[in-house]
Amino acid sequence: MRQSVMTSQLYKKGEIWSARFSEPISSLVKRYTSSVLFDTRLALIDIEGSLAHAAMLSTQGIISKDDGVAILKGMEQIRGEITRGEFEWQLDLEDVHLNIEARLTALIGDAGKKLHTGRSRNDQVATDIRLWLRGEIDKIINLIKSFRGALLDLAERHADTILPGFTHLQVAQPVTFGHHLLAYVEMFTRDTERMLDCRKRVNQLPLGAAALAGTSYPIDRWQVAKTLGFDSICTNSLDAVSDRDFAIEFTAAAALIMSHFSRLSEELVLWMSPMVSFIDLADRFCTGSSIMPQKKNPDVPELARGKAGRVNGHLVALLTLMKGQPLAYNKDNQEDKEPLIDTVDTVINTLRIFTEMIAGIIVNPSMMRSAALRGFSTATDLADYLVKKGLPFRDAHEAVSHAVRICIDEDRDLLDLNLEKLRTELPNIAHLLSDDVFDYLTLEGSVASRNHIGGTAPEQVRAAIIVARTMLST
Amino acid sequence: MRQSVMTSQLYKKGEIWSARFSEPISSLVKRYTSSVLFDTRLALIDIEGSLAHAAMLSTQGIISKDDGVAILKGMEQIRGEITRGEFEWQLDLEDVHLNIEARLTALIGDAGKKLHTGRSRNDQVATDIRLWLRGEIDKIINLIKSFRGALLDLAERHADTILPGFTHLQVAQPVTFGHHLLAYVEMFTRDTERMLDCRKRVNQLPLGAAALAGTSYPIDRWQVAKTLGFDSICTNSLDAVSDRDFAIEFTAAAALIMSHFSRLSEELVLWMSPMVSFIDLADRFCTGSSIMPQKKNPDVPELARGKAGRVNGHLVALLTLMKGQPLAYNKDNQEDKEPLIDTVDTVINTLRIFTEMIAGIIVNPSMMRSAALRGFSTATDLADYLVKKGLPFRDAHEAVSHAVRICIDEDRDLLDLNLEKLRTELPNIAHLLSDDVFDYLTLEGSVASRNHIGGTAPEQVRAAIIVARTMLST
Amino acid sequence: MRQSVMTSQLYKKGEIWSARFSEPISSLVKRYTSSVLFDTRLALIDIEGSLAHAAMLSTQGIISKDDGVAILKGMEQIRGEITRGEFEWQLDLEDVHLNIEARLTALIGDAGKKLHTGRSRNDQVATDIRLWLRGEIDKIINLIKSFRGALLDLAERHADTILPGFTHLQVAQPVTFGHHLLAYVEMFTRDTERMLDCRKRVNQLPLGAAALAGTSYPIDRWQVAKTLGFDSICTNSLDAVSDRDFAIEFTAAAALIMSHFSRLSEELVLWMSPMVSFIDLADRFCTGSSIMPQKKNPDVPELARGKAGRVNGHLVALLTLMKGQPLAYNKDNQEDKEPLIDTVDTVINTLRIFTEMIAGIIVNPSMMRSAALRGFSTATDLADYLVKKGLPFRDAHEAVSHAVRICIDEDRDLLDLNLEKLRTELPNIAHLLSDDVFDYLTLEGSVASRNHIGGTAPEQVRAAIIVARTMLST
Amino acid sequence: MRQSVMTSQLYKKGEIWSARFSEPISSLVKRYTSSVLFDTRLALIDIEGSLAHAAMLSTQGIISKDDGVAILKGMEQIRGEITRGEFEWQLDLEDVHLNIEARLTALIGDAGKKLHTGRSRNDQVATDIRLWLRGEIDKIINLIKSFRGALLDLAERHADTILPGFTHLQVAQPVTFGHHLLAYVEMFTRDTERMLDCRKRVNQLPLGAAALAGTSYPIDRWQVAKTLGFDSICTNSLDAVSDRDFAIEFTAAAALIMSHFSRLSEELVLWMSPMVSFIDLADRFCTGSSIMPQKKNPDVPELARGKAGRVNGHLVALLTLMKGQPLAYNKDNQEDKEPLIDTVDTVINTLRIFTEMIAGIIVNPSMMRSAALRGFSTATDLADYLVKKGLPFRDAHEAVSHAVRICIDEDRDLLDLNLEKLRTELPNIAHLLSDDVFDYLTLEGSVASRNHIGGTAPEQVRAAIIVARTMLST
Repeated sequence: MRQSVMTSQLYKKGEIWSARFSEPISSLVKRYTSSVLFDTRLALIDIEGSLAHAAMLSTQGIISKDDGVAILKGMEQIRGEITRGEFEWQLDLEDVHLNIEARLTALIGDAGKKLHTGRSRNDQVATDIRLWLRGEIDKIINLIKSFRGALLDLAERHADTILPGFTHLQVAQPVTFGHHLLAYVEMFTRDTERMLDCRKRVNQLPLGAAALAGTSYPIDRWQVAKTLGFDSICTNSLDAVSDRDFAIEFTAAAALIMSHFSRLSEELVLWMSPMVSFIDLADRFCTGSSIMPQKKNPDVPELARGKAGRVNGHLVALLTLMKGQPLAYNKDNQEDKEPLIDTVDTVINTLRIFTEMIAGIIVNPSMMRSAALRGFSTATDLADYLVKKGLPFRDAHEAVSHAVRICIDEDRDLLDLNLEKLRTELPNIAHLLSDDVFDYLTLEGSVASRNHIGGTAPEQVRAAIIVARTMLST
Repeated sequence: MRQSVMTSQLYKKGEIWSARFSEPISSLVKRYTSSVLFDTRLALIDIEGSLAHAAMLSTQGIISKDDGVAILKGMEQIRGEITRGEFEWQLDLEDVHLNIEARLTALIGDAGKKLHTGRSRNDQVATDIRLWLRGEIDKIINLIKSFRGALLDLAERHADTILPGFTHLQVAQPVTFGHHLLAYVEMFTRDTERMLDCRKRVNQLPLGAAALAGTSYPIDRWQVAKTLGFDSICTNSLDAVSDRDFAIEFTAAAALIMSHFSRLSEELVLWMSPMVSFIDLADRFCTGSSIMPQKKNPDVPELARGKAGRVNGHLVALLTLMKGQPLAYNKDNQEDKEPLIDTVDTVINTLRIFTEMIAGIIVNPSMMRSAALRGFSTATDLADYLVKKGLPFRDAHEAVSHAVRICIDEDRDLLDLNLEKLRTELPNIAHLLSDDVFDYLTLEGSVASRNHIGGTAPEQVRAAIIVARTMLST
Repeated sequence: MRQSVMTSQLYKKGEIWSARFSEPISSLVKRYTSSVLFDTRLALIDIEGSLAHAAMLSTQGIISKDDGVAILKGMEQIRGEITRGEFEWQLDLEDVHLNIEARLTALIGDAGKKLHTGRSRNDQVATDIRLWLRGEIDKIINLIKSFRGALLDLAERHADTILPGFTHLQVAQPVTFGHHLLAYVEMFTRDTERMLDCRKRVNQLPLGAAALAGTSYPIDRWQVAKTLGFDSICTNSLDAVSDRDFAIEFTAAAALIMSHFSRLSEELVLWMSPMVSFIDLADRFCTGSSIMPQKKNPDVPELARGKAGRVNGHLVALLTLMKGQPLAYNKDNQEDKEPLIDTVDTVINTLRIFTEMIAGIIVNPSMMRSAALRGFSTATDLADYLVKKGLPFRDAHEAVSHAVRICIDEDRDLLDLNLEKLRTELPNIAHLLSDDVFDYLTLEGSVASRNHIGGTAPEQVRAAIIVARTMLST
Repeated sequence: MRQSVMTSQLYKKGEIWSARFSEPISSLVKRYTSSVLFDTRLALIDIEGSLAHAAMLSTQGIISKDDGVAILKGMEQIRGEITRGEFEWQLDLEDVHLNIEARLTALIGDAGKKLHTGRSRNDQVATDIRLWLRGEIDKIINLIKSFRGALLDLAERHADTILPGFTHLQVAQPVTFGHHLLAYVEMFTRDTERMLDCRKRVNQLPLGAAALAGTSYPIDRWQVAKTLGFDSICTNSLDAVSDRDFAIEFTAAAALIMSHFSRLSEELVLWMSPMVSFIDLADRFCTGSSIMPQKKNPDVPELARGKAGRVNGHLVALLTLMKGQPLAYNKDNQEDKEPLIDTVDTVINTLRIFTEMIAGIIVNPSMMRSAALRGFSTATDLADYLVKKGLPFRDAHEAVSHAVRICIDEDRDLLDLNLEKLRTELPNIAHLLSDDVFDYLTLEGSVASRNHIGGTAPEQVRAAIIVARTMLST
């Protein structure tokens, strides 16, 4: 294979567009504008995209069959070099795409220079990011599945374990720990839905948009889309090269995932505090102190809280990035990759580690129970009792409120009041109170009575787990 | 109807929960914690929700039929008072929900106090917000439709109007103005999809979760869901009262809408600058200067750019708000309303004004054309010409790059070079050049040649408009 | 006083710049672009600025003395009308500045129309915001002073009260509650410094920049600066009208104030939880539940946490707003007012309510003490004991670590081990242990030993309070 | 030197706190919690801090003189190993601090294990970050100086070059290019002030706070502060280890620097567009297109715009990170390093590249001039002329507004109207117009007339440059 004089000049200078320029790029500029370091992750995907493009060019007769075959062979070799870590990335060649194309031309000559026919880096890069992100979304969806599974396993073991449900971190009403965990299953199920919805908008082919206006070659965009598994194609070339909505939408959905982890972490840290002691985390998820020999710190949930801020930051970076850009492509967009890639990594790593960690939680049911017995957690049940005896709800609420006030002043719990005392203190409603009132004040009675869809009764928790498991298996 | 002694005490003190407390709330605290001012917007929706709840209580025999009817009548009167602006909101009664309930009890006595049976403000508020937001999403979807229609009308009128397509604000290739506008149609179509996807997760009924654990009354959540038009019900009570994911998801989708407006505005401001003069905005969308008599300022697009920042800010506020909250409800959540309401207002107002404004754009095709003739916009077409003559793409690119360099040095355009000059300057490829090369350098030729799905050819633009119109009418 | 024909036309049309325009502004646009509603707060300050400007125009002979006097009289009347709530703001007149000028001309005729000589709304608005913000900063600094005072009072009362110091919400080492509170005094002292630093950059006069280039009248900017109490003048006219750095810097400093409140609130909510019970908040800062009669919720700190997100959001809004603006003034800037004003209000309200609330905290020293006795809080002291006996620190750390492990396994505390047991379990260091070891394990001993600047010893806490009080009184 | 048995166990297990734990940390957790990769940058600074600490321990007799000398020698060797790239960082040892300490103990035995006496990683890390950031702030201040110098050089060359000043991207009034550039000098001067203000709060010594409560050793914090060049010491130990305000304040100030670069970049990109052509950027700051041979893209300013979003994102990450943390140290804080380090790098790289780039700007004065002649840029001057003839400003504004309207309708400029035409069209003010009016409409006349501090007159620009240069040299 012969290489034209011009081409060798081209690659010698290391600049794809050099002829129009009168001076070389400074090394400072090279570093500032280069994306080689972070987008090598896109390398294998870039090859996949190039192969689909080349196959189409060949099918359409835009390049010869021989050139198509040469490109295929060359790319296979490059793929091997990259996989084996032998490929030499050059900062000089600006980005991963030009690195690969330069290597291809070195390997197969003029055929390599034909690969870029009918496309531009703008649509090529957009295609690569979408292909890559689609794969990562699929990974995330699977990891969320495993995490939901881990939550369900723990919830099932604790369908009857009672702890205080809190609002405002005050004891509100008793709930089961299984029910509490299922709240997170809900959150992560919504996260899965959002990922799937986002995937639809990611999985559209920009290739064919060329620089911004389409191309004059008789390309077949649907062939490329099918080869690469895209659901559809971007139907406006200007939009195709400039759209990063999908990256923002993904990052927003990822920020919600991390918010959920942050909320769960807030609870894990609290529950593990010696003041609460509801759970213990396995040692392998904790670290100690360099000075305090007794410390066992819940580092993983604390870091997850911190990393939620990190992803919020990436979302802001991306939104800020896009807001002032006129059509079509501007270099600002290169700054989309690092926040996007780091968001993916953060979500994936957090999912992995939490799935493991949830399985290693040691629950302390007696501490949970004793906390539920403090704080008048069944006061609502007393009010409901009075309503069933005929008192309007607001009056019942008011009456129990009085009873609680008395208990606080006398430093005892509702269960400590006997019937007579209750009747004395609440003369207006004394006639409604009988001995059965104390049945309503037990934790088990309270929990079991909330027996409707979404309620905390163990029966409901077990039913909900079955439904959730079915969803996971489909 | 008789009012029990207790109740009159209750409302006299103006505190639903007063008995447990030994001192009243300070007025500073009242203002700090009150939400009356901003959530009166939810008042009518709150009534709608209460009516569905009361109907269910009555059907289930939890309250008597008579009480059900009394509540209905009372609420109809309150609805009228609110609609006629006669309702007196009291800061003392903390929020819109308690204001309405107090009024109801004043009107119908004890039956009013039974309304809150089996629910809590936590699930009541969550239901109200979702009902309200669902309605606003539907408005937004319709307004986007109108806006897309306005864009399509303008695009159709300019399916053949040529302007320079820019990348990096440098002239790249000629495109049609219709094609350019269709890029925005794509963006706002995606925005519609996101709104629809978000709507699914908004339209789920939290009512029945009560404070956080469900209720001991035999409620029928599906009846309420059907009455209120919810697609499904929230299947975990703890999650139901604490979940604000839908508000964040909505605001993220709204931030993308505003980003699109910001990008369009960036272009409108630029196009209206006397340096560019591609368009003029109708006077009614502009303001003048207090000091410079000649000024006509594109205030509306500039404000829209600013308001994009505002919505980004609201998104950050909501994400920050949620990230550290343990289950279930915490008062932090009250701070979700203002950003959410302001986001809705901003998006709706911007959609309305832009739909009007787009229809009033005056296009200046001759300025567009003359700009497209500068900046070597058809250089890519020359490269493609050479490729079709057999040169590998990279070599063709390099050759044209040389030709452009010569033109810049000699301050002329590609079209100003004659064949001989071209051949002299590009000896390596002289044999490939013939007279037909100049056909490829016209704007019309360039545009027409990009004739595939998504390309800028007028034929494609017209086809895309038909497809987009069909989507709008479904 | 005579009004020229032209002027009456002007105000009849309600548009300062109408002649250049061929159609009126639509009402939708009026609402979208109007700032009347939120900047009436700047009205009195606008008058103050106008009076300083008019006095200078008169001194410099740019307007006559008579006109100067007329403007002064007219403005006094307008000031009265505004203060008494009689002024009629018109949305038609776009902003507060034009409302006042129109009223002035209605009152005093042609002299009113001379007020705007040598200035523009751009520099006028910039001056108003800076004057206003300077006043608010001064208020904030004073309110922080009061808040620091309230913290110091509480700290002094609890200079000896011991509670567990936490890291990672794990018990770390005993500290005094006074010491803990002083950490917040430090934070709010830094906040004061930041406000003062920011004030320097706020307190510079933009007036004289006119629209963007300065003015051709012989103005004296220093006279105006002195009249209005500005430290210096903005030394570049383009920058003067476009700069909003000071608003961003202020909002960033405000975000830190709110972060500190959010951190303190996180602790207050936790401390008030029945699981911890370190403190109780006075009833007037709490609310109850609509359904759970026993609830007492720490609404104020929870709202403060939420409002921290709100101010973060405003900061993002302002940063996003500015990032893409070319010089000089663009209408995007109008969107700076609402976030800025709301930030000021949020900070001021939060400071006021927390100063009151801190004074009303009920501390529960026995709960604090018993928590400090759990969790091996003096393990570090044991390690330090061993080091003083000659063991290298790392080895001492390791030895105590072993002892803690044994305690955990046997479910007891370090104090429960006797000397013999300790020696048996730690054979390598048995020779270093004698009876005095148990002196080091008391809470009081531990706390008192940290007796250096910044340490938690009560002696240091009292000294730090004296220093902090001295700073407050200067 | 002998190593005790325990210690060798310690380092063999690779865990400083291992004895308290019953199972090792999983490798997934190790990666999730490790900071070795990003904080090796702190290594040399960590050594500097440790040496100051060891010297103080030795002076105070807490460790022996011999141990002090051994630590010094060992650290010198480690410093050499790190500088020469020979140091082997181990992920197993969690962070840079433990890596160095482990190596020290390997080198010098028991003395190495004494280094950590009287400190904790909490105060050690806080000290390192502050020391490091102080150095970076000093670098940034110097780089801003160079950048301001480059702006001043360009401004001086163009003190008389006239271009249109814009508001709303509409032509407003003529200004000089020197004046325009000085606006940026103002911004970056404020940035310097903010860096200096922030530096005061960075440069305070946390060491001595130990884990959170101070230490029982007789340390001398002021000695350490003086050795390390700290201005003062953190006066509350709990605050000292948990405070990251300085990092947030720095990042907020950095976000303003990047906003200024983003605004300048917005202008550079616009000015370099062929539609404007005010300037050209040297080729070495631009890149070409992979498909369009004629393209020369202003990549550097576009990336700088994108990177402004990145730093905004980091600010949000840090604010989010801190807002919910109770005292004292929590692991969330480890997430502060990456955003902080990346912010520093981004600011430094951008300053470097822009200083070079500004020097390489090619200005096109004729394009600037011809743009200033369009758009009625001297209309304000005509109004001012009428005021000087006795017309109230508002009437003058109105009259010129009419004249501009006529010009627009007839497609000509103000200078194209002759005196007769002007008088005919403006009958009300015809008597005020004489031939000298046209003197006021020249660009030079307009610019020269704005001759007060901050005005655009060349005389003022030159004076301002002298003042700015003086500030730089101090």
